[in-house]
Amino acid sequence: MPSREFLSLLQDIVGGEDVISHPEDLLVYEYDGSIDTAIPRAVVFPTSAEEVSRVLALAYKEGVPVVGRGSGTGLSGGAIAPEGGIQIAFTRMNHILDVDVANRTATVEPGVINLDLDTHARKFGLRYAPDPSSQRACSLGGNIAENAGGPHCLAYGTTTNHVMALETVLEDGTIVNLGGAARETPGYDLRGVFVGSEGTFGIATKILVRLLPVPETVKTFLGIFPDIDSACTAVSAVIGHGIVPAALEMIDALSIRAVQSVTDAGYPDDAGAVLLVELEGLTEEVEDVTHEVESALWDTGATDVRTAQDPQDRERLWVGRKTAFGAFGAIAPNYYLVDGVVPRTRLAQVLRQVDHISEKYRITIANVFHAGDGNLHPCMLFDAREPGVVERSAQAAQELMEYCVAEGGTLSGEHGIGLEKKEFMPLVFTDGDMERMKAVRDAFAPGNRLNPGKIFPDGVPMPAAPHHAGPGMYI
Amino acid sequence: MPSREFLSLLQDIVGGEDVISHPEDLLVYEYDGSIDTAIPRAVVFPTSAEEVSRVLALAYKEGVPVVGRGSGTGLSGGAIAPEGGIQIAFTRMNHILDVDVANRTATVEPGVINLDLDTHARKFGLRYAPDPSSQRACSLGGNIAENAGGPHCLAYGTTTNHVMALETVLEDGTIVNLGGAARETPGYDLRGVFVGSEGTFGIATKILVRLLPVPETVKTFLGIFPDIDSACTAVSAVIGHGIVPAALEMIDALSIRAVQSVTDAGYPDDAGAVLLVELEGLTEEVEDVTHEVESALWDTGATDVRTAQDPQDRERLWVGRKTAFGAFGAIAPNYYLVDGVVPRTRLAQVLRQVDHISEKYRITIANVFHAGDGNLHPCMLFDAREPGVVERSAQAAQELMEYCVAEGGTLSGEHGIGLEKKEFMPLVFTDGDMERMKAVRDAFAPGNRLNPGKIFPDGVPMPAAPHHAGPGMYI
Repeated sequence: MPSREFLSLLQDIVGGEDVISHPEDLLVYEYDGSIDTAIPRAVVFPTSAEEVSRVLALAYKEGVPVVGRGSGTGLSGGAIAPEGGIQIAFTRMNHILDVDVANRTATVEPGVINLDLDTHARKFGLRYAPDPSSQRACSLGGNIAENAGGPHCLAYGTTTNHVMALETVLEDGTIVNLGGAARETPGYDLRGVFVGSEGTFGIATKILVRLLPVPETVKTFLGIFPDIDSACTAVSAVIGHGIVPAALEMIDALSIRAVQSVTDAGYPDDAGAVLLVELEGLTEEVEDVTHEVESALWDTGATDVRTAQDPQDRERLWVGRKTAFGAFGAIAPNYYLVDGVVPRTRLAQVLRQVDHISEKYRITIANVFHAGDGNLHPCMLFDAREPGVVERSAQAAQELMEYCVAEGGTLSGEHGIGLEKKEFMPLVFTDGDMERMKAVRDAFAPGNRLNPGKIFPDGVPMPAAPHHAGPGMYI
Repeated sequence: MPSREFLSLLQDIVGGEDVISHPEDLLVYEYDGSIDTAIPRAVVFPTSAEEVSRVLALAYKEGVPVVGRGSGTGLSGGAIAPEGGIQIAFTRMNHILDVDVANRTATVEPGVINLDLDTHARKFGLRYAPDPSSQRACSLGGNIAENAGGPHCLAYGTTTNHVMALETVLEDGTIVNLGGAARETPGYDLRGVFVGSEGTFGIATKILVRLLPVPETVKTFLGIFPDIDSACTAVSAVIGHGIVPAALEMIDALSIRAVQSVTDAGYPDDAGAVLLVELEGLTEEVEDVTHEVESALWDTGATDVRTAQDPQDRERLWVGRKTAFGAFGAIAPNYYLVDGVVPRTRLAQVLRQVDHISEKYRITIANVFHAGDGNLHPCMLFDAREPGVVERSAQAAQELMEYCVAEGGTLSGEHGIGLEKKEFMPLVFTDGDMERMKAVRDAFAPGNRLNPGKIFPDGVPMPAAPHHAGPGMYI
């Protein structure tokens, strides 16, 4: 429990109603979508950059570490409070400040929900492209911290490709502006290195994002395959045709059954795997490519290829994909999610290794992932009450990540490294590489007061009591 | 002249033939495409990362600053030798090491010429998208240092969007790898902040770039306008139709006459301005949008709209655009090129101000630029032998940049800041902003031995003897 004085100083800044510190009130802020938990000393709810700046200046003076918190949907522990630290929650800084239709940009506060921005932009014939599966819940501020991806990032790139400028507050309360409205700005690209810095460089308080025109036509295909091998071949075939689908997602047999047990997404229960392929663009363009996509799917062994007949049908196919993670709660109460990337051409081979590891460690592993990018999300499902299973899943994850790296892949940063993945960093980076990263962090946060203890390995093992799987969780 | 000993140590590393130090041999290395000049102490021509590493380690030990040099086409003095420094030229590290067709990437050495990579990739149905006007001459290493843009960056983004991974050598000779083959890599995006760091962080020795499929159809339009105002309106109209052309370039009356005096690009001599609009994509898509582009041009006052009839015709239209800068030599012997960005919707107004400034300072100003991005390139043309004209052009440039910033624009980073634009940095950045940038640089180059004296203002004025305009110069 924080000292009375520190709390009342926080209350002086944001108002008494906007600081919570009672243990029972704090419980909901102890977790995010990862397996880690920690109770913050307090949570504050500022309404302006100026308040954020004053809170940070106070915490800096008091030696209290700080983390920003959006919607708590993160998958790597990014928003978990550092030891002895407070959270700045952006629930009240959730306004879309401006949409500039002529220049196709929007200015938003960090608490704006991803889907709300997209929905608002569509009134003007525009869209916000990055679409994490958590887009109904996750916030733009969190998306920036984690450089969030999503199914449609295959065609449009991740969050960093859509963020033009940021107003941010540094650890000592200094407000700085990064980037600008132009495609390229002078000096070093500090905006670029800030995006994806997982809350360790500063806290964004205002965000200028790029919007894209809404495509004239969207067409969604469901390719049904007898096994995951043939579905992997289809992924290579689609890309090999020179097509860049807007999205290309894989859902394996286990995940299909989990999804269908909670909602009818229209996936056949007996399929070995399904592929969701989405095309976007001008009507003629989409029609022209339709034949090529269908051929690629049939030629690689699809037992059926279906096309969404209307927006409702399309929505249903996507709901299945986007709620798959939540549906895993029907299989097992706990999960541990791995995030790796491999060259697309190695997908089938790596997934065979996932199977092998699943058997070796006796852990059920479900696969729902961004196939077009080779971005795997093997999700280990277990009951943490079973003795030894948490340790086995950690070993399995380690072996799996090592295999991905050996196959020319890497850890993915799509969900951030946070607490959960930090011990994997040495698979990809040398000590020198990580020292250089820390030196860059020191240029923004020399005191390391923002979200300390994340990203870099420190030998603290995975927690023994992982979080529960279930609705509200997304990959 | 450098000490005999230092030279012979350099020769020990790269071989005697691959170090030049005689004053007459060095003359060709004293300039780039900017107005600055400086004679390097020596130029070395390494053939491997290991040689680059040994050269840097030696120079570090000797306290000699170093700059990398590609083809010397840069427009801000980026490749000009720092005082007492040597150049590492990449003429001999010019090999395309690999094209990975399945994963659509290429691995190249930094001395590879931009157009050579594109030409090679096209054998596999692929392309390298960033296309600076200097693409026949400029190197990939230089493109990375400056985060180079080009006409087709309107649709595809600048160099940073196409560079996935880098092998680089730091000031003390340490070889480090940044980025990776995946779309998103874990940890901070050091690759991103390296691209565009103008040779001050490290020297790239191997580059993994993204390739894109060659579009099925390319269609190029020439819109002919009675004045620049109506051409500006056309720019807004094209973009306002929701079209993202592959390129959208403006050439003003003065530039048209300069181009036509040296080559017949097919631009009418009496036009007030022409717009080059290029569409790319599937044949049906391009055909569908053709009508919208033509309407947008006619509706905003075009006196004629022509379409390139064949690849030769298209090439001719582009040769005019890409050699405009060289053609300015026909107007005046010297130039000073400004590089600013303004919101597209302010183009007409800002160009009226360019006219006003041209009259006020009695300096001829030609305008050839990336209109789709609002990226202006006012080029001041004068005879440096005229007393006071260099100072007047510097004042005019200052006033013009201040106006761009006041109109919601910024300095552009497209050509780098280098020596020429560094005194403009305070128009956009506070001292604190620039200190933070230097702190990030210190994470890579704490000794500031790579390309020192560039980017940040130090009160050293523009040189009094600007370089000559003429063929071989590009914007």
